[in-house]
Amino acid sequence: MAATSIPQLKLGAFFLIPGHHIAAWRYPEAESASVMDLGLYKRLAQTAERGRFDLIFLADSYSVSNRYPAAIEQIVSARPEPLTLLSALASVTSHVGLAATASTTYNEPFHVARKFATLDHLSGGRAAWNVVTSKYDEEAHNFSQGSHLLHEKRYERAEEFVRVATGLWDSWEDDAFLYDKENAKYADRSKAHPLHHHGEWFSVKGPLNVSRPVQGHPVIIQAGASEAGKELAAKTAEVIFTAWPTLPEARTFYADVKGRLAKYGRAADSLIIMPGLFPVIGRTEEEARDKKARLDALVPVEAGVTLLSALVDRDLTGCDVDGPLPDLPQAEAVNAGRSRFQLVKELGEREGLTIRQLYQRISGARGHLEVVGTPAQIADTMEEWLLGGACDGFNIMPPYFPGGLDDFVEFVVPELQRRGIFRTEYEGATLRDRLGLARPVHPAAAAGATSR
Amino acid sequence: MAATSIPQLKLGAFFLIPGHHIAAWRYPEAESASVMDLGLYKRLAQTAERGRFDLIFLADSYSVSNRYPAAIEQIVSARPEPLTLLSALASVTSHVGLAATASTTYNEPFHVARKFATLDHLSGGRAAWNVVTSKYDEEAHNFSQGSHLLHEKRYERAEEFVRVATGLWDSWEDDAFLYDKENAKYADRSKAHPLHHHGEWFSVKGPLNVSRPVQGHPVIIQAGASEAGKELAAKTAEVIFTAWPTLPEARTFYADVKGRLAKYGRAADSLIIMPGLFPVIGRTEEEARDKKARLDALVPVEAGVTLLSALVDRDLTGCDVDGPLPDLPQAEAVNAGRSRFQLVKELGEREGLTIRQLYQRISGARGHLEVVGTPAQIADTMEEWLLGGACDGFNIMPPYFPGGLDDFVEFVVPELQRRGIFRTEYEGATLRDRLGLARPVHPAAAAGATSR
Repeated sequence: MAATSIPQLKLGAFFLIPGHHIAAWRYPEAESASVMDLGLYKRLAQTAERGRFDLIFLADSYSVSNRYPAAIEQIVSARPEPLTLLSALASVTSHVGLAATASTTYNEPFHVARKFATLDHLSGGRAAWNVVTSKYDEEAHNFSQGSHLLHEKRYERAEEFVRVATGLWDSWEDDAFLYDKENAKYADRSKAHPLHHHGEWFSVKGPLNVSRPVQGHPVIIQAGASEAGKELAAKTAEVIFTAWPTLPEARTFYADVKGRLAKYGRAADSLIIMPGLFPVIGRTEEEARDKKARLDALVPVEAGVTLLSALVDRDLTGCDVDGPLPDLPQAEAVNAGRSRFQLVKELGEREGLTIRQLYQRISGARGHLEVVGTPAQIADTMEEWLLGGACDGFNIMPPYFPGGLDDFVEFVVPELQRRGIFRTEYEGATLRDRLGLARPVHPAAAAGATSR
Repeated sequence: MAATSIPQLKLGAFFLIPGHHIAAWRYPEAESASVMDLGLYKRLAQTAERGRFDLIFLADSYSVSNRYPAAIEQIVSARPEPLTLLSALASVTSHVGLAATASTTYNEPFHVARKFATLDHLSGGRAAWNVVTSKYDEEAHNFSQGSHLLHEKRYERAEEFVRVATGLWDSWEDDAFLYDKENAKYADRSKAHPLHHHGEWFSVKGPLNVSRPVQGHPVIIQAGASEAGKELAAKTAEVIFTAWPTLPEARTFYADVKGRLAKYGRAADSLIIMPGLFPVIGRTEEEARDKKARLDALVPVEAGVTLLSALVDRDLTGCDVDGPLPDLPQAEAVNAGRSRFQLVKELGEREGLTIRQLYQRISGARGHLEVVGTPAQIADTMEEWLLGGACDGFNIMPPYFPGGLDDFVEFVVPELQRRGIFRTEYEGATLRDRLGLARPVHPAAAAGATSR
């Protein structure tokens, strides 16, 4: 069984229809008008499952970015609500994990805990929750609030929110429900554990009106890369989605976060780090480069400037597109998307790029790892990052759908399998099994085991 | 085409697993341990579709009723979250409507509007929202609130909530999205309509980040039968779920509500009234009565008293079960479930029932119409109510699942079809089509049509 000692990649399929490239919707092969069509998502989910992906991932936000005209006219901003879509996909898939974003800033822990618990039951233990704290004032304005919560406050609220949600998942012990028709015992009352939480942000009594999830707790994903984000992740995350354009940066981050686990009593393999990967696949390197150039050429100037304005949180629409970036504040002064801000700012300053050059550089991968080449070249990079201590897997961001995912599954996955770094069949029953994450023991059972 | 002049029944399948009878879970044929199992719900949804039902309905509440020990031990209180479940069923059905409850008291309009809009898109126009204002203090305690909002305040909030949600569904005109790759026009900005709502309860800017629902607006259902509930329904509802044990009461309610429509400029057929129907089906009347008696005999005393305590909002666990009901307050003094309270109170007082007799009377239908008999007898009653001006259809509440629904579809539906009062094939494309409800014209299009 020598093969078991080779590290194994974890793979996520990041669904962003019609594609991760900002101009994907103009690409001839992108199915841009199918953004609300269940049929397309079914096909994609089944493709991901054929490719033995660990999970499908759906990002989210609670507003249409409409600060700039181009945001509505040239950027896709209306999409299905992720949990609703994932539930629909639960009944037409059998193995792939189902990960959705839900914000702790504009939700209630009872609702979020309950929906993910339900998804976990209905999918037979395949649910994962990407915990975010939201980004924009526009989101606050849709929830009767004047402005977005400050960065520090958001993270405090997020920490308590996750604590309440996991407490609610433990409302019932695993064997609390007896269904004993003969003796008229539906449930064992001694195995119900109301939460009685009274915190700074929430008061939640419980118990949850859903039995304990199949996985104990759905898998917890996080994506913050700021100092507060890394600390929260080290404390509570089981998967991290992150963005690094180069191996050295990714390796530094990987060592940093894994190094924080011990102080919370956690083993290194209890947290899986998955950077985003934007793959542009060609039969030859030239074909891949040509495809990338065709995508880039489709970016309207206004859309590019709008994308960049959102990432640096500053209106650039009045600036000379072939001039330099204006001076930007220090990252610490930015309230939202702080780590992405820093990454983009550094890229622009380091290489002295014009506004046009900078938006072209990020209109595809948006700061994530970008590989343009043959399936073997893409697999080379993935293997190098995996074996080089830079990641445990990747969140795959196809430039356009469905073709970009189809090609990855048809050409790159077999290449990874041939190298022995990716599964050829699904193992285990739940998403946790596939990710190698332990099922959380119920606190009452843990206490019982200790006192024995 | 004489048949078109015969009124046609609308039918809902009210899914409450393992059954509507309080002791259903003890019934031998009930699949009580499958309450979280998608497989069971898939089968039931496909049965409802085979039976040509208009819709499947899922009720909801946000707490476990645990005031009394028996509530946890002998009553089913943990079930799937309705919207999550309905989404999962959207992808394994093609025709049947998908109706879920969501409370306006403990939700945000942006989230609710978005989830139902998404369900409407993914299901091809089959979504319906049952608007409720919630009932219990226990629910408040799960959302950082000390007590449940007062009745009047709840209805004020509900009215504004529905107004905001429908406004968000109109965020985009039907043809706002162009997907014009050639001319780089994804959307027409002039067809985006942010809401800019600033009300007493909510401030919501919009636009919604989902395109206009297939049905324009998902169908709006309500269930309140109090004065405030009836008025809100006459103003905003398209379907009413209601509970009446006898034809005269149902007929009075029907005339009352339909009579309120004119003052809001609405036609009588723009609101569909569907009382609940609890059918106990036997090949003979005797077999049906025997089945009902077997179900009733399964109700443990504690569960019966608990059910009754919840309905009259008063702890009866210390009372003599074979004695009379204690004096109860006037309905006006009750904050939640007011109309159901009144119905149960009146039933007990009118017939001078003991506590045991009263809980036995309501442990099945809970105040809804109950018919125990052959398929022909059940069809007789349904036809009598339909032709007698007491309803436009029924929300079917099988005593136990899956058998109670199977029997209804196998034996009662053909009986209704033979009488020409129920469809034999699905007509139209959306739930609105099936219910005969008009698709709401977008306000901008309506204004344009007027000014022409």
